[in-house]
Amino acid sequence: MAINEPKLSIIPLGGLGEIGKNIMAIKCGDDILVIDCGLMFPEDEMLGVDVVIPDITYLIENKSSIKGIVLTHGHEDHIGAIPYLLDSLNVPIFGTSLTLGLLEAKLQENLVKEKADLHVVNPGESCQVGIFQVELIPVSHSIPDSVGLAVKTPLGTIVHTGDFKIDQTPLNEEELAINRFAELGSKNILLLMSDSTNVERIGFTPSEQTVGSALEQAFTQAAKDRIIVASFASNVNRLQQIIDATYKHKRKLVVLGKKIETVLETALKLNKIQLPEGIQISLEESKKIAKHKITILTTGSQGEPMSALTKMAQSQHKQLEILKGDTVIISASTIPGNEKLISRTVNSLFKLGAKVVYDKTSGVHVSGHASQEELKTMLNLIKPKYFLPIHGEYRQLVRHKRLAQEVGLKLDQTFVLENGQVLEITKEKALVNGRVTAGKILVDGLGVGDVGNIVLRDRRQLSQDGIFIVVITLNKETGKVVAGPDVISRGFVYVRESEKLMDEAKERVSLSLEQCQEKHLSEWSTIKSNVRDVLGKFLYEKTRRRPMIMPIIMEI
Amino acid sequence: MAINEPKLSIIPLGGLGEIGKNIMAIKCGDDILVIDCGLMFPEDEMLGVDVVIPDITYLIENKSSIKGIVLTHGHEDHIGAIPYLLDSLNVPIFGTSLTLGLLEAKLQENLVKEKADLHVVNPGESCQVGIFQVELIPVSHSIPDSVGLAVKTPLGTIVHTGDFKIDQTPLNEEELAINRFAELGSKNILLLMSDSTNVERIGFTPSEQTVGSALEQAFTQAAKDRIIVASFASNVNRLQQIIDATYKHKRKLVVLGKKIETVLETALKLNKIQLPEGIQISLEESKKIAKHKITILTTGSQGEPMSALTKMAQSQHKQLEILKGDTVIISASTIPGNEKLISRTVNSLFKLGAKVVYDKTSGVHVSGHASQEELKTMLNLIKPKYFLPIHGEYRQLVRHKRLAQEVGLKLDQTFVLENGQVLEITKEKALVNGRVTAGKILVDGLGVGDVGNIVLRDRRQLSQDGIFIVVITLNKETGKVVAGPDVISRGFVYVRESEKLMDEAKERVSLSLEQCQEKHLSEWSTIKSNVRDVLGKFLYEKTRRRPMIMPIIMEI
Repeated sequence: MAINEPKLSIIPLGGLGEIGKNIMAIKCGDDILVIDCGLMFPEDEMLGVDVVIPDITYLIENKSSIKGIVLTHGHEDHIGAIPYLLDSLNVPIFGTSLTLGLLEAKLQENLVKEKADLHVVNPGESCQVGIFQVELIPVSHSIPDSVGLAVKTPLGTIVHTGDFKIDQTPLNEEELAINRFAELGSKNILLLMSDSTNVERIGFTPSEQTVGSALEQAFTQAAKDRIIVASFASNVNRLQQIIDATYKHKRKLVVLGKKIETVLETALKLNKIQLPEGIQISLEESKKIAKHKITILTTGSQGEPMSALTKMAQSQHKQLEILKGDTVIISASTIPGNEKLISRTVNSLFKLGAKVVYDKTSGVHVSGHASQEELKTMLNLIKPKYFLPIHGEYRQLVRHKRLAQEVGLKLDQTFVLENGQVLEITKEKALVNGRVTAGKILVDGLGVGDVGNIVLRDRRQLSQDGIFIVVITLNKETGKVVAGPDVISRGFVYVRESEKLMDEAKERVSLSLEQCQEKHLSEWSTIKSNVRDVLGKFLYEKTRRRPMIMPIIMEI
Repeated sequence: MAINEPKLSIIPLGGLGEIGKNIMAIKCGDDILVIDCGLMFPEDEMLGVDVVIPDITYLIENKSSIKGIVLTHGHEDHIGAIPYLLDSLNVPIFGTSLTLGLLEAKLQENLVKEKADLHVVNPGESCQVGIFQVELIPVSHSIPDSVGLAVKTPLGTIVHTGDFKIDQTPLNEEELAINRFAELGSKNILLLMSDSTNVERIGFTPSEQTVGSALEQAFTQAAKDRIIVASFASNVNRLQQIIDATYKHKRKLVVLGKKIETVLETALKLNKIQLPEGIQISLEESKKIAKHKITILTTGSQGEPMSALTKMAQSQHKQLEILKGDTVIISASTIPGNEKLISRTVNSLFKLGAKVVYDKTSGVHVSGHASQEELKTMLNLIKPKYFLPIHGEYRQLVRHKRLAQEVGLKLDQTFVLENGQVLEITKEKALVNGRVTAGKILVDGLGVGDVGNIVLRDRRQLSQDGIFIVVITLNKETGKVVAGPDVISRGFVYVRESEKLMDEAKERVSLSLEQCQEKHLSEWSTIKSNVRDVLGKFLYEKTRRRPMIMPIIMEI
């Protein structure tokens, strides 16, 4: 290979081997294009963590090369980390109008709006980002204005699907650009990167239109009830269908929740949603009209459907009380890990006397991601030289790779990467070569990255068996105990009923201190580790629990 | 109603409005019959809790009336709380041979075996428990020797299905006693209590036989691989099918895991499983033969399939390492709430290069509970005067009630109860009347019931934002600070990088102490609450976190 031969590096910094925090860098010569910059919600074991963002060390180190960020759509897992990135990396951001509209609202909330350099690109049009010409191709997904990308590079064209499904009967005609993908496919595409979220589902993902019929049925059955619909705030087409059903059934619409109000406002401004004149009323106004004339549309503070509904189910929602006879429609999917919460919420709603339309067979929700047959269609349309499955957990990437083999790609044409691994493409070949920094940055409150393994390990131990504190005051000169030992615990046992245990523990500590004195052990660390050992054994023996033991020594 | 008219009380103490800890009391005159006594695994928010058992206060208060416990089958959620109950309530226990065999092994582990008064009753036969004559009727479920019950009472016969499915092609012919249920149905059954676990599933639950075909296919495809099968230890019929496939494919069988060894031993002793001569070898021996000649059957320490597999996936299993090319078959269902763990385990297995047979379409698992059509069949067979759905979350009980209405029962014939609510039945009518103590007792280590709301609330707070401790030593006479304030935190921030924050916090405390002195506030509680307020505000402002703040005052 000649030294100056052009070389393309594909560098996933997030979204591979995980669901969320999607971010991909494409490098050619001195130019870097970044696609998406999303966040992820924390795993169960990330105790106390609010959100997770990608580690962008690599981008910061190559700051001068970064020519811009192109966004595929306005979901949190594609735009959510941008407020955190703007501090260290202020580059032009390109996207469709709704995507940038939602991003703007987000930046405003984070008080960093003025920093951003946003450029609207219409679906079907292109933008120039350094040497890369990037075409935004309309795709169907669970938010309008979603696009896939065709990135022209000196070595050939790369197609990045974004998140997509192939909806043959979409709500908005402009969504489906299957012909454009076909056209591209006839032009020797170098690399296809395709959404793997639903690769484990056989067949086709149903059309968003089917939700309309299911909603129609639910509204008809609930003709005498107040209707409460919970959905994802960002699913503008879904909101449209809920509005349509409300209008058709001569109901008024109450919108509840800050995030959904923001989305609605943005979508209205951009003409992405149609709201019939006079249909929307306030919750206050709704109290004056008959229950069966009202639809309440709600989501939680983050735009997720369950948090507000969970509060209502527990009768802890500040504004709305679920009444006997209400019909509650959950027009949303179960996020993995959330199953129990949803099941509990539905139980509580039932207990309050509500009818709940929630399960899969009800048809009030469909996914926004392509199933196996659609993924195969995309592979067959594009016929890429190389294929890289993206947006999915490891097993999903592997299954997507297998799907590619089923439609005829060879093993050496397909790659399963981890975040940070670099796929290098030259005229002759593609190979995995090298690794850059990539990973998870945990955000907890105002702290970005300060919660790491040590803090999490402590939180985990505290969460299981609580803490047991021993305080001793020593005389600096003599080394003698002048106060204590005192023992205090939290989250370990119910103290009022465990006085004997606490007293015995205190005795053990005193004994251990005496032994230290006898042996002339006066190093604090030695005393502490002695106390820790003695207490640890004693408490485990008595309770089979292992609280965090914390000896504190004061000196006067 | 005459005072001496016979009256029947149906008293669910567990298993209604929840999945697990099934226990039901039936009272007539001075005689009480108890059906099952199971445990439940803790909910996510029960931090550090090992298992949950039913509150049996009602039974202890009526000790002299309790004539015996009849068990429907050997699953933990039906027998698991018996070791805890034996201390306070030693009554005869009746059940089929495998159920009591598994219970015995369990009691032995808990060193309470000698206390138990166990009576084997064969399926199809009856036992007398006080005035109740109880017939054990064979049913199909995911463990052999499962039974439903027909309880003859002075007011009529009660049918309790236990956990069941209607398997038209069961592995053991003796399982299916649909004819006996039909016969009972022709005799004016007073009350039917029926399993609601799968009431949300339409159609029929597939036969256990179908798993045999799916396993056959998986074994054929894995002809060149080592096979590792994870399943529930107690699913003896499943174990049989895995053994059969192993035998047919001329493999040797390695059994890994204490619980599965116990079950296998018990089942062999009772002739509930057939193990071909010489098929079982040790893990050590297996190392000497070709990989594709080995089947490894494994479960975790509690008999659940995922815990051992999770360790293997993380390369942390003490005995077994997953090798590239292994085929791993997960012959088990996803327990609600466990989805993420399983998904992560499958990802890790894929990363290690294993092939994993795991999803629903693979057919290597079927449920042991009846779906809607089977539940309707049971209702139509029994045609009860009254109907009480049991074994299910609240929404499932309500849906089961609706199913009963669909097949013709009237609203006033069906009841949805919560644990502790009493259903009173006389000749004329049935009504919900009164409430007895019922609830959850949390077991953590050796502590039964000592972890309650306060301990859990503390654990929750500790788990989210950690703890912040302030220690001060005061002079008893003068009230002056002689040592400290010292500040220590765990699980709050990464201390090494937060020195400034800690120093500032210390200053704030000093200031607050000075102010207390100036105002002559010397009450410990006042000082503590001052410190708590000042620090709480300061730390929240700086970090947006709310650690548990713990001021400790020592006096000399």
